[in-house]
Amino acid sequence: MSKLKRNERVGALVKILCDNPNEIYTLNYFTNIFNAAKSTISEDLVIVKKLMEDLKLGRVETIAGASGGVKYVPDMNLQNTREALNEICEMIKDNRRIIPGSFLYMSDLIYNPAYVRKMGKIFATKFMNKNIDYVVTVETKGIPLALMTANYLNIPLVIVRNDNKITEGSTVSMNYVSGSTGKIQTMYVSKRAIKYGANVLIIDDFMKAGGTAKGLLDLMKEFDAEVKGIGVMVATREPEEKLVDGYLPLIILDRVDDKKGIRLSPNEVLFN
Amino acid sequence: MSKLKRNERVGALVKILCDNPNEIYTLNYFTNIFNAAKSTISEDLVIVKKLMEDLKLGRVETIAGASGGVKYVPDMNLQNTREALNEICEMIKDNRRIIPGSFLYMSDLIYNPAYVRKMGKIFATKFMNKNIDYVVTVETKGIPLALMTANYLNIPLVIVRNDNKITEGSTVSMNYVSGSTGKIQTMYVSKRAIKYGANVLIIDDFMKAGGTAKGLLDLMKEFDAEVKGIGVMVATREPEEKLVDGYLPLIILDRVDDKKGIRLSPNEVLFN
Repeated sequence: MSKLKRNERVGALVKILCDNPNEIYTLNYFTNIFNAAKSTISEDLVIVKKLMEDLKLGRVETIAGASGGVKYVPDMNLQNTREALNEICEMIKDNRRIIPGSFLYMSDLIYNPAYVRKMGKIFATKFMNKNIDYVVTVETKGIPLALMTANYLNIPLVIVRNDNKITEGSTVSMNYVSGSTGKIQTMYVSKRAIKYGANVLIIDDFMKAGGTAKGLLDLMKEFDAEVKGIGVMVATREPEEKLVDGYLPLIILDRVDDKKGIRLSPNEVLFN
Repeated sequence: MSKLKRNERVGALVKILCDNPNEIYTLNYFTNIFNAAKSTISEDLVIVKKLMEDLKLGRVETIAGASGGVKYVPDMNLQNTREALNEICEMIKDNRRIIPGSFLYMSDLIYNPAYVRKMGKIFATKFMNKNIDYVVTVETKGIPLALMTANYLNIPLVIVRNDNKITEGSTVSMNYVSGSTGKIQTMYVSKRAIKYGANVLIIDDFMKAGGTAKGLLDLMKEFDAEVKGIGVMVATREPEEKLVDGYLPLIILDRVDDKKGIRLSPNEVLFN
């Protein structure tokens, strides 16, 4: 390939780094594909770092040492976080979403990449420095959000199943009490899905009593895993006392009522 | 914000466009955030277009007219497609993946963002010009791949359920014969998940006889939806005659045998 100009290299560096968040690239990798000197690439990277900071689009970090290089660290700034959550709250506040039994229809939001991309980025930003090895969720509705979070953290996703599936091989199971039905259920995860002693982040779409999260917490103990955080898209205000502590909701749901309507708001903690 | 230099604007344009594939941005949007003239942004975009083409990183397209602007269209080039599929095939060819009953353990691959990102991009590249409104999958194992495909196409994902869930509201159901178990099962999708007359792309992780895909095809008829394509990560070589036609597998699986091992290869059609 013919030599690129500086502004072309800068654009290409941004593309490659941001397409693969938290992936470390060596300077050699770039000197090869751009057919340019190390000093040239270093100068390009200074420009990339500055523009990311100036426009609050995330950070480009340099890692020193033998296995060193540069990587892009996604960062959802406060303004974008606020805008995204306000937009999502406005969309949820539509009485046509109310389903008999005071449930909320949210599948259109929680399966739409445009929204889960943003919410996944918020969780990734919050849990970036926790050295997390796996994002863990239980099927089905939390999977898209959990995958996007794992995507920005650049780590594997683990999906816990509600049935013992043949394709998972040998599994570890855990009984839990579902908050919405009050029934005892069992969750299963492949024994080979999680290395012993790992750090995990639990992500789910909805939390009422916290029964599912508690089940996941107990299941993780069977792998000697440390749960470094629990992120949920929507948590109900009531019951205030949940079965788990220290969870981080993006949105707090006060009320779903056929007549009085839906009341909810972004979790203000995220803006401090 | 102080005025940016050209190479900073180019980097920022790449970041914003590529973070939101297939999302149309007006020139005004960029003149505002960069505090620059339209003519300046137009020149920047010429550079962005050229570097994308030169490095085969996708395309930046201009849409004329009142609702016009520019958008980034992801494009997985042949070399990257080949490299990604070869790498995934090598990882699957590990006898420790064989589960009693000649099943393959693949959860680590099909839930890992690093791999589903690439495979989703391949599907998005193949079905980009089909005017697709929704990506449709059935829970659970195909969800990550389907979400990433929907992400690059910038369209909603629809998840068909194996049980009739209260949070889906009124549902439409379809009976189908599962290829792996031979049993009749029922799938359900919310009535409000798909607009009548839409174009859909079906994505799943695995196809043997094609029973699940056939069920989805029949279910889509209930919405007067046109199925514009069926993409599966892995299809078995046998039975050659599937219950559906015109599906596109990324990988073709010849054999899973405890003694003889695993034989599979990328679908050569993708390289033509």
